[in-house]
Amino acid sequence: MKKDKFLYDKIYEYYKELIRSGKLEEGTKLPSIRQCAELQAVSKTTVEQAYINLCDDGYLIPKSQSGYYVSYTGRLREERKSVKNNKSLKYSSDYASTGVDTSVFDLSLWTKYVKNALRQDYRLKDYGLPQGERDLREQIAKYVTKTRNCVCDESNIVIGAGVQSLLNILCALIDGESKNVYFNDMSYKQGIAVFKDRDYKICNDIESADILYISPSRATKWGDIMPIDERHSLVKFAHEHSKMIIEDDYDSEFRDLNRPTPSLQGLDSENVVYVGTFSKLLLPSLRISYMILPTELTRRYNEIGALYNQTVSIPDQIALKNYISDGRLSSQIKKARKLYTQKSKILTDALLNELGKKAVIEKTATPLYARCKITTSISLNELTQSLKNCEEPVRIIPVSEGKGEIVIAFSVSAVKTENIEPDMRKIAKILL
Amino acid sequence: MKKDKFLYDKIYEYYKELIRSGKLEEGTKLPSIRQCAELQAVSKTTVEQAYINLCDDGYLIPKSQSGYYVSYTGRLREERKSVKNNKSLKYSSDYASTGVDTSVFDLSLWTKYVKNALRQDYRLKDYGLPQGERDLREQIAKYVTKTRNCVCDESNIVIGAGVQSLLNILCALIDGESKNVYFNDMSYKQGIAVFKDRDYKICNDIESADILYISPSRATKWGDIMPIDERHSLVKFAHEHSKMIIEDDYDSEFRDLNRPTPSLQGLDSENVVYVGTFSKLLLPSLRISYMILPTELTRRYNEIGALYNQTVSIPDQIALKNYISDGRLSSQIKKARKLYTQKSKILTDALLNELGKKAVIEKTATPLYARCKITTSISLNELTQSLKNCEEPVRIIPVSEGKGEIVIAFSVSAVKTENIEPDMRKIAKILL
Repeated sequence: MKKDKFLYDKIYEYYKELIRSGKLEEGTKLPSIRQCAELQAVSKTTVEQAYINLCDDGYLIPKSQSGYYVSYTGRLREERKSVKNNKSLKYSSDYASTGVDTSVFDLSLWTKYVKNALRQDYRLKDYGLPQGERDLREQIAKYVTKTRNCVCDESNIVIGAGVQSLLNILCALIDGESKNVYFNDMSYKQGIAVFKDRDYKICNDIESADILYISPSRATKWGDIMPIDERHSLVKFAHEHSKMIIEDDYDSEFRDLNRPTPSLQGLDSENVVYVGTFSKLLLPSLRISYMILPTELTRRYNEIGALYNQTVSIPDQIALKNYISDGRLSSQIKKARKLYTQKSKILTDALLNELGKKAVIEKTATPLYARCKITTSISLNELTQSLKNCEEPVRIIPVSEGKGEIVIAFSVSAVKTENIEPDMRKIAKILL
Repeated sequence: MKKDKFLYDKIYEYYKELIRSGKLEEGTKLPSIRQCAELQAVSKTTVEQAYINLCDDGYLIPKSQSGYYVSYTGRLREERKSVKNNKSLKYSSDYASTGVDTSVFDLSLWTKYVKNALRQDYRLKDYGLPQGERDLREQIAKYVTKTRNCVCDESNIVIGAGVQSLLNILCALIDGESKNVYFNDMSYKQGIAVFKDRDYKICNDIESADILYISPSRATKWGDIMPIDERHSLVKFAHEHSKMIIEDDYDSEFRDLNRPTPSLQGLDSENVVYVGTFSKLLLPSLRISYMILPTELTRRYNEIGALYNQTVSIPDQIALKNYISDGRLSSQIKKARKLYTQKSKILTDALLNELGKKAVIEKTATPLYARCKITTSISLNELTQSLKNCEEPVRIIPVSEGKGEIVIAFSVSAVKTENIEPDMRKIAKILL
């Protein structure tokens, strides 16, 4: 791993701060990549990566053959706020949401599993194992070994209600010396909170970090994933420099559909703590997550783990165990992938149908996302505002704009299938 | 509150350490209460309280008209260990367990509530509120206002999967300056772990503490509870000295049956954080707890609470809400109280029946516990060993022994009703 590999984060933070504080105003043109590389004494690749990330996160808009401009940050902040409050504006179709399509989840089937679990009353009279029920851990070990090429058995697995519950335990297992944590996704506030609360320092360069919190699926906002060579070099770098990796494998089931990538844990199981969750696979309202500990931390867990009570109710654990061992989880994932692929196709077909040669579909890493370049005289801002002010408001992901063209992206997971075609017609109408 | 009110903990720790380290050997007589009071320059009441606590925790055995002797500590430690491992010895009847009688819980009724909750699929597609579902918080507010005279509304309540999950959030809300925590029940390792992990100091005197973690129900091992005047003076003391109280109201539903005592929260809602759990009322395997925050911490929670994801699944929250609002919880508590009262009566009747005038039943604060003084030439050690070596081993709580008499106690909650009479016959047979 080259030393400047993660220098781009410094560049990123530098401009982010300038934009956030208002020192760089809306519409200001940034120095070109070459100029910036000279100014900051870094490589052009580094600057490019930083600019791309700033675009991803909505701070910059790239204009073709012109350069990078400070985005309508006020508007972006407004939008984010309104989503957070959830009261100010309710979208009929939200193509910026990473929510799930709950229609894929057979709730009545799950109800049967819960009901069945509640019949096993001899297992419910007890507090159960702090680590989680053994049979569920066995099923999870099998599942991640098969689907994510993880290296583990049930003894390495700890179950908990949500990633934060697990991180709380993990912090207690980690030696108190390592206090600098790098997050590749700084927008994951809940993860950062756990470490900040324990006086860990959150740092934005990988060099000075003791722990690297990596969400390979969160590489960019529209679902690109960390490529395999980067995974290999990251794992090697961490190992050589005795930095522990925490791999938050959020959403992997859907993201690496076209080109399966191995988990970091599978590449170095002795230096990677793997964190996974079933909330996205089942229902957001069900909180069952797990982590896989390396040998050394497993040994430590066996010493002090009993101090941390299990947070997932046993009926849910039993239900999930049977749900996995009966093959229900696999078929559900298949079903979801099929549905998301279908939705992406409906969306791109509709766009091409409505816009003809004015639309060019760009390739994405996963069927969860569709991205499209459109020839139009309408600006990104005009489009998003029009969509927002519709009777049935629609939200999309603005990506970039150039002379007479814009790029927009769509996350299809949370949107209703039957809404897609009417929404694309609406977009076409505004654009043409 | 007099200044030496909690000095007894210092005395307690002093002797505990001497006994644990083996510096005071088994059978050694301790200085009399008067001698010790002079030696340590504290009041006799203080020493008495310390000695009583040392007896409660199995370090001392009081012999009538003779004094206090170091207990068979090796054996006690062995016993504790064996219970912890759970493998070495499985008791047929465990009168030392604080487990619940699950026969009182109507599992099929609860299953109906869960099933019904799983039908509300529009509420399950979402992550829900980090604070917990609003309707459940409203029900809990009503419940604790009525049964524990708490002062709160739903906005003060945070729901979480177990007390530790809530304490993790609470620590984030508390200002970082207050770092000394006093626990009145030092055996609550899970609670202590949360604070230790965050570099809080655990102190055993109330004077130097910033935070007082009080479990009023855990005042002694056999179910005595903190008396009302002590509650009043504790709350006043804490208020005057700006020490925050965390009240862990564990088991209160069953403990203060005969003489209802108010919660500390009800006495000073602006300085007490109340923590309660439904695990004991429903099933140990269901983890739903809650805390009630004072105004100031509620304000702080509203600022940063969104950083901490809810850990209880929404179906469980909906089920519990309806279970409470339908009056099911109240009737179940009534049922449990009736059952425990019945079991205590069966136990004491059986003892009196078998032992006649040799047994004197002592009054306890709650029907969860029975305590009995028995005239016998058998020692406590001989009794517990015989019961342990039975084909169907029985465990009791050894309290004290004197010349030709012993005091033993029984926790009836976890033991099967039909076992009680045969068990008492077994005890009588050994004793006579």
